[in-house]
Amino acid sequence: MKVNGQHYRTIRVNPEDRAVVEIIDQRLLPHQFKTVSLTTVGDAHLAIKEMLVRGAGLIGATAGFGMYLASLSAGDGDIHEVLVHAASYLKSARPTARNLGWAVDRIMAAVNKLDGADNIRNTALVSAQAIADEDAAFCKNIGEHGKKLIKTIAKKKNGKPVNILTHCNAGWLAFVDYGSATAPIYAARDASVSLHVWVDETRPWNQGSRLTCWELQQEGISHTLITDNAGGHLMQNNMVDLVIVGSDRTTRTGDVANKIGTYLKALAARDNDIPFYVALPSSTFDWNLDSGSKIPIEIRSPDEITTITGITKNGTIESVNVAPDSVEAANYSFDVTPARLVSGLITERGIVAAEKTAIKEMFPDKYPAQ
Amino acid sequence: MKVNGQHYRTIRVNPEDRAVVEIIDQRLLPHQFKTVSLTTVGDAHLAIKEMLVRGAGLIGATAGFGMYLASLSAGDGDIHEVLVHAASYLKSARPTARNLGWAVDRIMAAVNKLDGADNIRNTALVSAQAIADEDAAFCKNIGEHGKKLIKTIAKKKNGKPVNILTHCNAGWLAFVDYGSATAPIYAARDASVSLHVWVDETRPWNQGSRLTCWELQQEGISHTLITDNAGGHLMQNNMVDLVIVGSDRTTRTGDVANKIGTYLKALAARDNDIPFYVALPSSTFDWNLDSGSKIPIEIRSPDEITTITGITKNGTIESVNVAPDSVEAANYSFDVTPARLVSGLITERGIVAAEKTAIKEMFPDKYPAQ
Repeated sequence: MKVNGQHYRTIRVNPEDRAVVEIIDQRLLPHQFKTVSLTTVGDAHLAIKEMLVRGAGLIGATAGFGMYLASLSAGDGDIHEVLVHAASYLKSARPTARNLGWAVDRIMAAVNKLDGADNIRNTALVSAQAIADEDAAFCKNIGEHGKKLIKTIAKKKNGKPVNILTHCNAGWLAFVDYGSATAPIYAARDASVSLHVWVDETRPWNQGSRLTCWELQQEGISHTLITDNAGGHLMQNNMVDLVIVGSDRTTRTGDVANKIGTYLKALAARDNDIPFYVALPSSTFDWNLDSGSKIPIEIRSPDEITTITGITKNGTIESVNVAPDSVEAANYSFDVTPARLVSGLITERGIVAAEKTAIKEMFPDKYPAQ
Repeated sequence: MKVNGQHYRTIRVNPEDRAVVEIIDQRLLPHQFKTVSLTTVGDAHLAIKEMLVRGAGLIGATAGFGMYLASLSAGDGDIHEVLVHAASYLKSARPTARNLGWAVDRIMAAVNKLDGADNIRNTALVSAQAIADEDAAFCKNIGEHGKKLIKTIAKKKNGKPVNILTHCNAGWLAFVDYGSATAPIYAARDASVSLHVWVDETRPWNQGSRLTCWELQQEGISHTLITDNAGGHLMQNNMVDLVIVGSDRTTRTGDVANKIGTYLKALAARDNDIPFYVALPSSTFDWNLDSGSKIPIEIRSPDEITTITGITKNGTIESVNVAPDSVEAANYSFDVTPARLVSGLITERGIVAAEKTAIKEMFPDKYPAQ
């Protein structure tokens, strides 16, 4: 995707210095576009935990490169021990994100039986790069499959824009490139489909207003920011044709953990007969889980609700407290949308019903034997 | 209700100078408690439009006193003309709020056939005061009826707190005293029922975090601030026993216009078999409307979404922009919860099903002949 007209990925190894991984500090967007260098597994852990990077695919890619950075700090004697420690350290950064554990385990599987620090470091780097490349490729495929969905709706709209509602940021910034929920939007735009995106603000971290709006602005896609409260009203009034969201963890039965508030939009979509799709690469499936109730739900700091950071009229970045002093606040970060409310899952292999038999049929190589 | 231990109403005529109406500037809460004097109908119009005052009952009471202030500016010759103009001017301040038109019409009906500016001014004042007193009395009654509901749930909780979720501020600050949605909470507290309130932040104007939390804090009632996105998750996890919200306009068939996002909570309550009640004085019924789709929905400035005001670490009040420059935003302020999702309406006369026959039976004197 493009930033000020120039192509960027959300994460990369510095081509001049392969001991440095570069990310964008997403906490500063949209007010400031700043890249940050990661050089240790501690940097990677912090970047994930403090949300310099966030989003299913990008958390996975950062964890992959974090394992590689961990390998750089070890010698022949302790490298396996260092990596085992790094694996559990990285996994602890965000509990709900499935791609985190998936990426760490993938690196571990690749290096597990290898000897020699150099060999292991090279393999870790190649594997981490493969995770990132695959993420971008899978998102591109998701775009192609989702595009058909949008095109079908466009035919019924007689030239009027297809109105798509999205929650949080499952965009380019949440992955390595393209995004999951946004990939079909970019692909449809490239195919000259007229569309407009309703962007949920997505409290408390404002991924919608801060990131999705910024990203769509960079790509020149028509969009309107709304509060998280507004989607139901829009759906009641025929102002939404399609909902597409991402996922942080999806069970093998099709239950979807995604940013808190997703479930409410799914309910409204069902109540108004509006298709509700979830876009995800297969790396987001948790093949071990058969029910959304088993997905761990992250609870983050109450400060994210009571304090908001923005830019003043003078152009300085400032944090303000918006609630009474010493108020109790609870910051549940994800909710689970039951499969019954999901019209379909848009994956890199195609669109599949949110239902175990269909998922198993599309992913027989990944679905666990029972 | 109490502010720093002292009893306050949200609006009153200054006892020392009856040409002055005093309100609280609710835009400054919770950071600053400041009363403001209204002396003209223009002041009253602005206070309603710019939301120094807001909430069903308080908008009505302010409009009533606004008519009185208008009468003060007129002489024998032009007072009727002045009041006709003031009536339509005040009514234009907020389109969805039913109590606004109701209060203005009530003052007009009281003075319509009177002669003499003094006589009319006195009657306008007496009528405006009656609206305010009745509002407080009705809210107190709503509290008594709603308390029974909470007590019934409390019996099943075996001493554990009853968890009540509320959206927006239908509290003391939204009325003259007690509030509608909060009145049952205050009454249950007075009856020593153990309870806890989940307070929806209520974007974009943050009535929940700014006003409801502050109000509950003043009254010493246990509460936790959550984002508007979180209620569904809490309901899925048995953390909510009851939802009570207010209303800005309710049709004679039981459809409820309330703060944007209410509909989403009603859907989640239904999906999880949680009772969803709407508390309102009868002044909020629009007896002319037989469908929620006919309720005008106010659209406010996009600035309310993109700019947030709070307090900095240095204690100064500051506004910050939280979205990209020049982003498009749409600020729909209310939505309509269809009667089918409403468990019941808590009114000053008792709890009634959200259904025309039941409403007609409880309000035969107000229900229109058909």
